[in-house]
Amino acid sequence: MRIGFIGLGSMGQPMAENLLQAHYSLNVWNRSAAPAEALEKLGATVCESPAEAAQCDVLISMLADDAITRQVIVGHGALESLGDGAIWINMATVSVDFTHEMQTHAAANGVSYLAAPVLGRNDVAAAGKLNILTAGDKALIARVQPIFDILGQQTWYFGSEPSQAVTAKLAANFMLGSAIEAMAEASALVRAHGIPAADFLGMLTSTLFNAPAYKGYGELIAQERYSPPGFKLRLGLKDIRLAQQAAEAKNVPMPFASVIRDNCVDALAHNEGDLEWAALAKVAARRSGLK
Amino acid sequence: MRIGFIGLGSMGQPMAENLLQAHYSLNVWNRSAAPAEALEKLGATVCESPAEAAQCDVLISMLADDAITRQVIVGHGALESLGDGAIWINMATVSVDFTHEMQTHAAANGVSYLAAPVLGRNDVAAAGKLNILTAGDKALIARVQPIFDILGQQTWYFGSEPSQAVTAKLAANFMLGSAIEAMAEASALVRAHGIPAADFLGMLTSTLFNAPAYKGYGELIAQERYSPPGFKLRLGLKDIRLAQQAAEAKNVPMPFASVIRDNCVDALAHNEGDLEWAALAKVAARRSGLK
Amino acid sequence: MRIGFIGLGSMGQPMAENLLQAHYSLNVWNRSAAPAEALEKLGATVCESPAEAAQCDVLISMLADDAITRQVIVGHGALESLGDGAIWINMATVSVDFTHEMQTHAAANGVSYLAAPVLGRNDVAAAGKLNILTAGDKALIARVQPIFDILGQQTWYFGSEPSQAVTAKLAANFMLGSAIEAMAEASALVRAHGIPAADFLGMLTSTLFNAPAYKGYGELIAQERYSPPGFKLRLGLKDIRLAQQAAEAKNVPMPFASVIRDNCVDALAHNEGDLEWAALAKVAARRSGLK
Amino acid sequence: MRIGFIGLGSMGQPMAENLLQAHYSLNVWNRSAAPAEALEKLGATVCESPAEAAQCDVLISMLADDAITRQVIVGHGALESLGDGAIWINMATVSVDFTHEMQTHAAANGVSYLAAPVLGRNDVAAAGKLNILTAGDKALIARVQPIFDILGQQTWYFGSEPSQAVTAKLAANFMLGSAIEAMAEASALVRAHGIPAADFLGMLTSTLFNAPAYKGYGELIAQERYSPPGFKLRLGLKDIRLAQQAAEAKNVPMPFASVIRDNCVDALAHNEGDLEWAALAKVAARRSGLK
Repeated sequence: MRIGFIGLGSMGQPMAENLLQAHYSLNVWNRSAAPAEALEKLGATVCESPAEAAQCDVLISMLADDAITRQVIVGHGALESLGDGAIWINMATVSVDFTHEMQTHAAANGVSYLAAPVLGRNDVAAAGKLNILTAGDKALIARVQPIFDILGQQTWYFGSEPSQAVTAKLAANFMLGSAIEAMAEASALVRAHGIPAADFLGMLTSTLFNAPAYKGYGELIAQERYSPPGFKLRLGLKDIRLAQQAAEAKNVPMPFASVIRDNCVDALAHNEGDLEWAALAKVAARRSGLK
Repeated sequence: MRIGFIGLGSMGQPMAENLLQAHYSLNVWNRSAAPAEALEKLGATVCESPAEAAQCDVLISMLADDAITRQVIVGHGALESLGDGAIWINMATVSVDFTHEMQTHAAANGVSYLAAPVLGRNDVAAAGKLNILTAGDKALIARVQPIFDILGQQTWYFGSEPSQAVTAKLAANFMLGSAIEAMAEASALVRAHGIPAADFLGMLTSTLFNAPAYKGYGELIAQERYSPPGFKLRLGLKDIRLAQQAAEAKNVPMPFASVIRDNCVDALAHNEGDLEWAALAKVAARRSGLK
Repeated sequence: MRIGFIGLGSMGQPMAENLLQAHYSLNVWNRSAAPAEALEKLGATVCESPAEAAQCDVLISMLADDAITRQVIVGHGALESLGDGAIWINMATVSVDFTHEMQTHAAANGVSYLAAPVLGRNDVAAAGKLNILTAGDKALIARVQPIFDILGQQTWYFGSEPSQAVTAKLAANFMLGSAIEAMAEASALVRAHGIPAADFLGMLTSTLFNAPAYKGYGELIAQERYSPPGFKLRLGLKDIRLAQQAAEAKNVPMPFASVIRDNCVDALAHNEGDLEWAALAKVAARRSGLK
Repeated sequence: MRIGFIGLGSMGQPMAENLLQAHYSLNVWNRSAAPAEALEKLGATVCESPAEAAQCDVLISMLADDAITRQVIVGHGALESLGDGAIWINMATVSVDFTHEMQTHAAANGVSYLAAPVLGRNDVAAAGKLNILTAGDKALIARVQPIFDILGQQTWYFGSEPSQAVTAKLAANFMLGSAIEAMAEASALVRAHGIPAADFLGMLTSTLFNAPAYKGYGELIAQERYSPPGFKLRLGLKDIRLAQQAAEAKNVPMPFASVIRDNCVDALAHNEGDLEWAALAKVAARRSGLK
């Protein structure tokens, strides 16, 4: 089985590397050359175009957003090149609407489409410990399960429609944004009463909120360490917007999502879009007149 | 050292029992007689009045709210009875303003006041595993630390002002309300897309949100099990209101708290105030037209 | 018919003056002496205490808030002095709960209680053009209607319970706060797109929103003229809080009220509490990074 | 000067009629035939295609949304047909992004683009009393001012960029949505306290809020008359979404817009999308458990 891997950013690169380590044959393509060349030393076939990379049985894409994915996979002929009977697994976080659109394009080319967005940052990807959220035809998923087993620690199934995996992923990112905003507001409250945020967050994340999401973001907020960003605030806003679109498509009001969005926009207005998403704590502190 | 214990509800009763098991001499008083009588068999001295119970070195109170605490401790002469050099530890969740008020009353009677609200429900109290949030004079806290060590697994210190422990507790309850509301909205979103809430919440609380707060409330939401309540929604609303007051006192805007409050009010309008706080998920589902 | 008038602030003073001009016999009392002395020249009897001023048939109070009204009218013996068969008309904006409390106090002294809060600022009061919102016993209102006809241009009736007039007044002030916040946000939006706020607000208040509330506040926002304040932001916040309490008492979620409250708190955190309420436009601009 | 008029819906039809009455030569096109035929009797030239209608000096379009405008004007060759030196006036409410896109398309065809969205419903259009919000090149606007003078009572200028007129229009619709939501919440509050909404709104719209926006929507809310719709709730939601996009493009947080959006989504979840926008009052009442 030959795999094509398109999109070798901070997530895609370690994922592709893990597949090579597991002795899969890999075609790789990336907009900039450097990440592909690094993989070449591990045995990857570096391709000149998305279409060339897509000459494979299973194409994995891990691109930044809807527009880039559309351009690279549909615009540059990868889908046609992929051809009849092949599988395209989109592991990036995209929109529900885009998922429907790509399914249609894939089907028109005889290609089966799977959505498999992941939970975990690049260190988790490197360790092969991602959580993979998937949805679609179960027989199809069974065929690519060995790939998922290399990339992740567990595969979660959310239904027969690929868009359901996307929805679950957007809901998970909304949960992260909510955790950050809640810590941001609570930290402003305790700081305004003379309690160091670190004292409060330390207690919280050692007790009731003793979970990776809280420990990680809590530490960043306690230390006010928003740069370099692990996940940029402006990308957090993008995902909240996608969650809101998915919600609106089914008439689900999400007032917490609205608050997060408004506060992300406030951050952008203060040139904080390229900071870590946890910089929502700066917004809460600023509005409270702290520091 | 003789301890007075006033307020033997679902939290106070197991706490008092643990102190008796640790061989402390205990005066107990409660509005209804039954819980006091049960403790009598374990060696407690059942008192006829708060004032009688307060003939001790350390008075612990665990009463429902500001008004009842004011009435029982100040109104019924317990403070005067407690007298010079004694310590009053208020372990209930009360307001910041009330804390200042009680400090003043205590000082006027030569009594030292400590705030020591707790994290944990009655099963945690029974196991002596509470987390105790405290603030105030450190020498004073050192004197009662042996008591805290019986009641809880850990004592957390938030500053020299008793109100700081109260603020930390209100901030923690705000975090719980935020966790519930976030799961409520996310569950509505995934359900509207045909994903069982249990599938999503199961994944979430096994991975990034693998923490007691999420596992506990997540299971209640997944199973839509809101009765009997562990913590009533109307008490959740009360604590959010106290958090908002504490925030307003220091000019901290908390838009998440506002959303939680509005949705709790929506729940009350639908006779859901005596359900479990997690019934915020019913509000999110109803607004989305689900079920 | 002798009238007692207590509270000669920026509203009460011109109201009392209008009653004197209409040849009513007036007892007046105020915490500071100056406003009372000015009225003395117009024929008012300046009293030494609230109780002395309350030796009359109809007592009108126009005091700053619940606490001051309670202290002056109940605490200083005015109610007892007022006595059997007299009428107390509270024309200030107070809370619903306080209204119930005062009714009980009044009834215990054989006094009939009317709530009659007003719409209009001090220039409107001076012109005798207030809108008077009232509720309570209709026969009672008929008896004091001649007084209302001097003070206002129209009397509006909202039901048999005095608290209903209070609710209508709080709802009206909520409407004002909403108008200000909407103009604040819209002004930030157009300014961010290079349109002077004055151009947009000028168009708006000449067309669809050609109403006093919008013309007045719109002009303040267009000119960024927030000082001296006509109605202080911190008093606006107070009234929003009272509206929220009235709403919560009947289980009415009011998300707009929550937004206004949060933004008023943001303003207070930036020392803008003593500016005009329209300074909510400063909050919207600041959050957008404007100026 | 020959005018082409595309889009003869409830707004476009009376506007085109007024131009015919003023003796302009008119090409007309509409997706469905009936409205065009009615105008034929008044002297209009009914065209077979948008491109045919666009054989004119000034093209006016009044189409439902971005997508339909793009399809009809760009997709069907109207722009090419319009040709060098002509003017295209888009009088519909579209997005800021779409405005930039159409400007580019127009320029590429030698066509000048003007945005001129209007305030007023179809009865106002019929009376030639619209308020026309415009922006763009002033010399260009001067050339079409005689047309605007037929269609409207006043033309408002918001800057040299066509998108500024669009922003002003979206801000105005946001103001309308805010007025409706504020009345919806206030009506729920007073109703919950036993005051008929009509009593409160009647007072309000006779005094401080004596403006067309409030009188019109206030009456609908007072009478709970949401069908037939004058302006559908789902179109209100669409415009709020466009306002949010315009705000996000310039980093302006608009928490009121977020609340309106969430409540519109709640309405859609209850099959109220085709009711009058004022049906937001049904959402507020439902959340409060009224009726």
